[in-house]
Amino acid sequence: MSSPDLRTARTARTELRRRGQRGSHDRAVIDPILDEGLLCHVAWADDYGPAVIPTTYARLGGDLLMHGAVAARWLQPGLPLCVAVTLLDGLVLARSAMHHSANYRAVVLYGEGELIRDHAEKRRALEAIVEHIVPGRSAFTRGPSVEELAATSVLRVPIVEASAKVRTGGPVDDAEDLGLPWWAGVIPVGIGIGPVIAVCKGVAVPDHVGGWGRGARIG
Amino acid sequence: MSSPDLRTARTARTELRRRGQRGSHDRAVIDPILDEGLLCHVAWADDYGPAVIPTTYARLGGDLLMHGAVAARWLQPGLPLCVAVTLLDGLVLARSAMHHSANYRAVVLYGEGELIRDHAEKRRALEAIVEHIVPGRSAFTRGPSVEELAATSVLRVPIVEASAKVRTGGPVDDAEDLGLPWWAGVIPVGIGIGPVIAVCKGVAVPDHVGGWGRGARIG
Repeated sequence: MSSPDLRTARTARTELRRRGQRGSHDRAVIDPILDEGLLCHVAWADDYGPAVIPTTYARLGGDLLMHGAVAARWLQPGLPLCVAVTLLDGLVLARSAMHHSANYRAVVLYGEGELIRDHAEKRRALEAIVEHIVPGRSAFTRGPSVEELAATSVLRVPIVEASAKVRTGGPVDDAEDLGLPWWAGVIPVGIGIGPVIAVCKGVAVPDHVGGWGRGARIG
Repeated sequence: MSSPDLRTARTARTELRRRGQRGSHDRAVIDPILDEGLLCHVAWADDYGPAVIPTTYARLGGDLLMHGAVAARWLQPGLPLCVAVTLLDGLVLARSAMHHSANYRAVVLYGEGELIRDHAEKRRALEAIVEHIVPGRSAFTRGPSVEELAATSVLRVPIVEASAKVRTGGPVDDAEDLGLPWWAGVIPVGIGIGPVIAVCKGVAVPDHVGGWGRGARIG
């Protein structure tokens, strides 16, 4: 599903100004980050100024898909958007306070969305969002009705003007701090999962629920 | 540290348009969400349009503090910002695709920042950010030098125009879907922690590292 040969656009917005060595415009780096994330944060600006909210999404080929109520003020075609997907991988503890950092993988995507109006395409997009969060789930649900489709906007943003930024590894302390008696290293973090809570009776926990996981098992 | 009697401002921006019953302008709801989050997403708009990036932060009393390189284009006094802190608590699986949802606690804060210029105050702010991520850590580090302070901007945004939105509980299916044979319930998620990785020799893992955790233990 990933696109190893594709490069995204290097524009004034996606040029990585700081710590450029952490950055990439490679879809082979960008797509797996988008695929692992559960939520994105989508930003826009309107008469009230800049705004950002969390929402679900999916990547489908070269598009990022998001959905919401028809009235949502950010789900408008042609509205400039910026979408961030951030995976926090570790807390990086250095000997000096200022070299504390985080290991992370993040994608920032700029673009304008286009509303998906065709109902068949809309169904595929909404199914992709369910599948993105819980792979295998959509076959075990009642699909959207015509009324539900009409009440929902689905926006497609092409993954073109995008970049990834990745930090890995341990702390980078100044040489003169390496002898300090402080512990230094990394606390790895990721998605933890609790025991599932069923609200249905007489239905065994299906594999797509009992086996759900995200990213590397770190615990 | 929380402020149970304080209400944030209900403005056109923080008025909760959709699913208002999930919302709050109560600092007693807002502050614990800010305190539990590890990263925020900060949005602004400039000549390039809207932008959003992830960054660390801390709440200190009635202020949200963020820091970065002096040159960072979003760390400017008076620039309208919107900051989101999102805690994902569970994946909510309904019998119908469209009633799938997420349990979450999120804060959205609007405001303009003010740069902290006094060095003593800047030190306290940077210490608060370290303490926010890893409580107890700052006493076991070398504090910022004058040069490090000069290279770092710290922005203070008052927690005034803010709201929280919280979803808890199981899926809410339509009555006619309750008899469908599909599993329904919640997959609880949270912060998972891996075994710590030390890059120092001969230093025992301190309590603030070995005992680090965030939110309820869900696993």
